[in-house]
Amino acid sequence: MKFSPLLSELVSALTCLPGVGNKSAQRMAFHLLERNREGALKLSSVLHNAMEHIRHCSRCRTFTEQPVCDICQHPQRQDSGLLCIVESPQDVLAIEQTSTFNGTYFVLMGHLSPIDGIGPQEIGLDELEQRFRSESIQEVILATNPTVEGEATAHYIAQLCNKYHIEASRIAHGVPVGGELEYIDGNTLTHAFSGRRKL
Amino acid sequence: MKFSPLLSELVSALTCLPGVGNKSAQRMAFHLLERNREGALKLSSVLHNAMEHIRHCSRCRTFTEQPVCDICQHPQRQDSGLLCIVESPQDVLAIEQTSTFNGTYFVLMGHLSPIDGIGPQEIGLDELEQRFRSESIQEVILATNPTVEGEATAHYIAQLCNKYHIEASRIAHGVPVGGELEYIDGNTLTHAFSGRRKL
Repeated sequence: MKFSPLLSELVSALTCLPGVGNKSAQRMAFHLLERNREGALKLSSVLHNAMEHIRHCSRCRTFTEQPVCDICQHPQRQDSGLLCIVESPQDVLAIEQTSTFNGTYFVLMGHLSPIDGIGPQEIGLDELEQRFRSESIQEVILATNPTVEGEATAHYIAQLCNKYHIEASRIAHGVPVGGELEYIDGNTLTHAFSGRRKL
Repeated sequence: MKFSPLLSELVSALTCLPGVGNKSAQRMAFHLLERNREGALKLSSVLHNAMEHIRHCSRCRTFTEQPVCDICQHPQRQDSGLLCIVESPQDVLAIEQTSTFNGTYFVLMGHLSPIDGIGPQEIGLDELEQRFRSESIQEVILATNPTVEGEATAHYIAQLCNKYHIEASRIAHGVPVGGELEYIDGNTLTHAFSGRRKL
């Protein structure tokens, strides 16, 4: 004999969360039933709302429930002429937390990966070209991940920038601050040396 | 600048799940938005349903959406005269998976813990006494956890059984099958020795 049908359904529905298998889902289901029914009801309604209303920003493609996100609406950011290209909305958050960048973003929602059928159109490069044509962008900062696909994507977009006579730059790769040299991988060290700056 | 309000709300609602902090909640929110909106909508509705309809079985106190759970309704189990007392519905599942027990259960939903204000009433011992009075129970098997609180709870219920002239037994503690003696803690080994059986 197993759980009651509704409880089984709840456990299996919880496994849709990333990193949650059957055992964790069971633990979550029991925890919510025993100790936090209110929280679970709130989660249920917020989840429904979010899935129904959160869409992509029509300018930068990040997640937002408005037609255009707050960052894209910011007049000062629009006038900066800086456009930072990242792979995911999480990257936007990480950059925003440093408060070092005051331009607008473009979120690819992925990277070029022909083997998975992800070409320029899937990562919104036609929309990006549209922005290159219609906005006065001085510099494009390529902040895709330092992986093979991320580098390839950055390279592809750099060529695109070239076509529109827009300056393109790539974020620096090197030894992370607070890291210890002896534990840094060779690839990163090579980058750190080739990207050295005069003091 | 942070996430859009609805997205922040989703992230904070997800932290009601046990073992999910802010970072994991972010990852979950983005995963659902990017890849599994359907699953999330399903989760939302199942979650709502489960929280609204799953209550405790009126006989054994396990979770069920029916007034009396399937196990308690089973005529053969009712006639067995065996009652197994466990701390949580998960324990019922664990025992059911072995198919070794064919009686009914009583789920304490916790254990005696005076320091946390959990006394006999909170773990439903008055309902249990009611069952002792109204049903013909031959044996009560105490399968609470082998912790200090679990042992104390088992001891307390054993005294209760005594009062109603019902036989009470405790599940065996000892070396787990497949375990290696050298890695077993001393307490368990002591139990294994004192609980030895003639061959």
